[in-house]
Amino acid sequence: MSPPPPPAAGLPTHISAVRRCLAAWNGARPAALLICAAVGLILRFGVPKPGHVTPKAWSLLSIFVATVAGLILGPLPVGAWAFVCVTVTVVTKTLSFAAAFSAFTNEVIWLVVAAFFLSRGFVKTGLGDRVAMVFVRWLGKSTLGLSYGLVLGELAISPGMPSSTARAGGIFVPIIKSLAAGAESQPKDPSARRLGAYLILSQMQSSNSSGAFFITAAAQNLLCIKLAESLGVEIKHQWVTWLKASCIPAGISLLSTPFLLYKIYPPKLRTTPEAPAMAKQRLEQMGAIKREEWIMIGTLLLTVGLWVAGEALNMANVVTAMVGLSILLLCGVLDWNDCLSDKQAWDTLTWFAILIGMATELNVLGVVPWLSGCVSDLLKHLSLSTFGTFSLLQLSYFFIHYLFASQTAHVGALYSAFLSMQLSSGVPKLLAALALAYNTNLFGCITHYSSGQAAVYYGAGYVELRDLFPLGLAIALINLVIWALVGAAWWKILGLY
Amino acid sequence: MSPPPPPAAGLPTHISAVRRCLAAWNGARPAALLICAAVGLILRFGVPKPGHVTPKAWSLLSIFVATVAGLILGPLPVGAWAFVCVTVTVVTKTLSFAAAFSAFTNEVIWLVVAAFFLSRGFVKTGLGDRVAMVFVRWLGKSTLGLSYGLVLGELAISPGMPSSTARAGGIFVPIIKSLAAGAESQPKDPSARRLGAYLILSQMQSSNSSGAFFITAAAQNLLCIKLAESLGVEIKHQWVTWLKASCIPAGISLLSTPFLLYKIYPPKLRTTPEAPAMAKQRLEQMGAIKREEWIMIGTLLLTVGLWVAGEALNMANVVTAMVGLSILLLCGVLDWNDCLSDKQAWDTLTWFAILIGMATELNVLGVVPWLSGCVSDLLKHLSLSTFGTFSLLQLSYFFIHYLFASQTAHVGALYSAFLSMQLSSGVPKLLAALALAYNTNLFGCITHYSSGQAAVYYGAGYVELRDLFPLGLAIALINLVIWALVGAAWWKILGLY
Repeated sequence: MSPPPPPAAGLPTHISAVRRCLAAWNGARPAALLICAAVGLILRFGVPKPGHVTPKAWSLLSIFVATVAGLILGPLPVGAWAFVCVTVTVVTKTLSFAAAFSAFTNEVIWLVVAAFFLSRGFVKTGLGDRVAMVFVRWLGKSTLGLSYGLVLGELAISPGMPSSTARAGGIFVPIIKSLAAGAESQPKDPSARRLGAYLILSQMQSSNSSGAFFITAAAQNLLCIKLAESLGVEIKHQWVTWLKASCIPAGISLLSTPFLLYKIYPPKLRTTPEAPAMAKQRLEQMGAIKREEWIMIGTLLLTVGLWVAGEALNMANVVTAMVGLSILLLCGVLDWNDCLSDKQAWDTLTWFAILIGMATELNVLGVVPWLSGCVSDLLKHLSLSTFGTFSLLQLSYFFIHYLFASQTAHVGALYSAFLSMQLSSGVPKLLAALALAYNTNLFGCITHYSSGQAAVYYGAGYVELRDLFPLGLAIALINLVIWALVGAAWWKILGLY
Repeated sequence: MSPPPPPAAGLPTHISAVRRCLAAWNGARPAALLICAAVGLILRFGVPKPGHVTPKAWSLLSIFVATVAGLILGPLPVGAWAFVCVTVTVVTKTLSFAAAFSAFTNEVIWLVVAAFFLSRGFVKTGLGDRVAMVFVRWLGKSTLGLSYGLVLGELAISPGMPSSTARAGGIFVPIIKSLAAGAESQPKDPSARRLGAYLILSQMQSSNSSGAFFITAAAQNLLCIKLAESLGVEIKHQWVTWLKASCIPAGISLLSTPFLLYKIYPPKLRTTPEAPAMAKQRLEQMGAIKREEWIMIGTLLLTVGLWVAGEALNMANVVTAMVGLSILLLCGVLDWNDCLSDKQAWDTLTWFAILIGMATELNVLGVVPWLSGCVSDLLKHLSLSTFGTFSLLQLSYFFIHYLFASQTAHVGALYSAFLSMQLSSGVPKLLAALALAYNTNLFGCITHYSSGQAAVYYGAGYVELRDLFPLGLAIALINLVIWALVGAAWWKILGLY
């Protein structure tokens, strides 16, 4: 990673030998590895174990904390680090192999994997492009309209494409790039601000709201709900319940984002007459809807239909996704090699299952209930009201995301604990679970590293880091205000509290 | 797959439309799909269910038989087909999601995955090449000696590299190609028979014996033992027990294969003085053993040591493999991207776990015991002795492999059933389990499609199909005779029966 050090003529030989050795090292980053290991070891052996907690549970907590430290500091890529940590849990017999790997049979993990594959179908068939182009042709005459076209296009496909990252990388970044190029707005160039930078930032920040809109619009949503259920929160008719509570605040957030950014981060180009023309031309090039696209549309209607009606049919979400994927495989819309090449899917399967496995066992071994009991005692001691507790925990959960490089990792590491603290402080169950899940979407783009889609949009090269941080924070705060005010009112009407 | 049909001027339009439609079809192969579905549906609805078997079990058996039919007929790639079939089991509620996916927490499945990654380390560091070159330099003056050098080289690395396919594709095919090119023996050319064809065929057929030699030399070995355990066969000190029983027959098979092929499939070139020279030069190019190779050597010594001593230390085989892989990841010998790009590993994880999951549930639901009871009743009815039963079942298990394209698929589909039949016919437990597991190695190269390594060796292009089938059968029969005579005598001495 680091360049070879300059010849160290003046240094004693043994120091320069160590330097050479470190420069040739291409394994785990030493400082990060040391810190993570130290954190785990100090917690395990240096901190006196509370009486209520069994030695095994205390060991697991230490390893889990070291694992989460590694998610933040990155001694190794996330998947490799999770693998090393789960190895430590089984070698030390903290967990049995079966317990450590138990989450590989978790429905949501496989739903996430299937979601990656389904999303590929959207990209591969060109259906995602087509939908976006229809919206661009309709609304794209002005820059602001163009952005609304793209944002509404994303909203339209999101219920059937449960990966914000795939939507960004597979559909919207390529489209915005070609729109910007058509208007002579180039990445990594002063001309970026003509059009590309605004469109990218608007799409990026709106993706928070489209992700929060439908439970099946982002993989982590389903996980949140699953984790909530395992803590005893009963959620009936999940797809509809989610949408009922999200539609008003997410809709307002979604509709205000392009406009607000148009004011605070204005594009130099205000009209884009060539965009609808380009969209028209692209749609003509695409020709009539192809056989693969029809199959994709049929599969999506079936999948989303089954997701909506799942409970009535007693069909789990994952089974619906499996049916959809099977149809695409049988019809050759996706081939198996597409699935096997999807490194992100296999990576997520591995580290996510490992993390969820550890988090589940922490719960089983009583660590999470104990910890959240302590925190809620502390909060009671501070004489915070239920409302104060709710706000404090939601805000902490939000801002901790500056430390995380993935929304799913954040959920795996912290969702259960933060929900559990709210439940033991008396926050209404459904309110706590849903608010925390929506919250997980809202922090998706506060930095360029905070999620897969943020990295992809930033990677397009139009937006500079010095703009991205303050604007990410500004939109996040505006969203928080919208959700706090509108959400609170709407949820009162719905009777969530 | 099929070329577009010729313009069908004379045909009625609707027929040519159907033809065009079929030609554009790139999904599942229609004939194979229809046959598989028909097999399953006829068994489920057309064949009267025996009284002892529950409806669920009968459904599962039908789906399983259709799945295995698909492994043979290939309507889709193996992984995709397994996925479609497991979807059918959960949609029809034949199995719960948790039961259908339960094998994803199976230790052996993950051992196989870890084995793929460890094997990559051998290839990536060049350590496998180096070991092979040492043997070539030592024995490679004559063509026969060269082949022995390569075969012994493979034997030397096989206990720490549990994938015959990785040994073939990563190490021995490239080496044999460059040796043959040096002797002007080209693939797909009459000159192939000068040297390349013999070396390839000898290596390919010897790989059966090196795979059978050590329990950790081939992934399917560990699976066989695990399945045997789940049928109540207790095997102590697995690594050593396996080696004790295999060493004499596998050693004799291994040593006779290059010689026999030298007689019945002789190379035109009898001396290869340039081979040791080339090996010497390659070793000089490689220079001293690199840091990564030392780490690989250390990791392997540790891993094999722990595999040998595993029972005493109460450390499962999979945990050992995880420790080895963690060391390679932490030291940067392997990076996580190497693992994620290993499509074969993820493919095997998926279809293998699905197949094992179904097979396990067939056992749990009582189908396998019922079926094997029927077969052993039949065999008793034929008044076969235990010896006759043993021979008949081992031979059937062997020759059925003409229908299979993978050793692991064969094990997943049939090992439990064939072992169970032998056990209920009174064959000594350990004998039946081990013989069936060794058997699984011996049929690895009877055709060019019978295993991963067979496909890789055939794919090198030196050996023609019209030679491969008769020679594959000849070596297989010779091996069977060696194992039947020498094995029988040796196992009597060891007290296996």
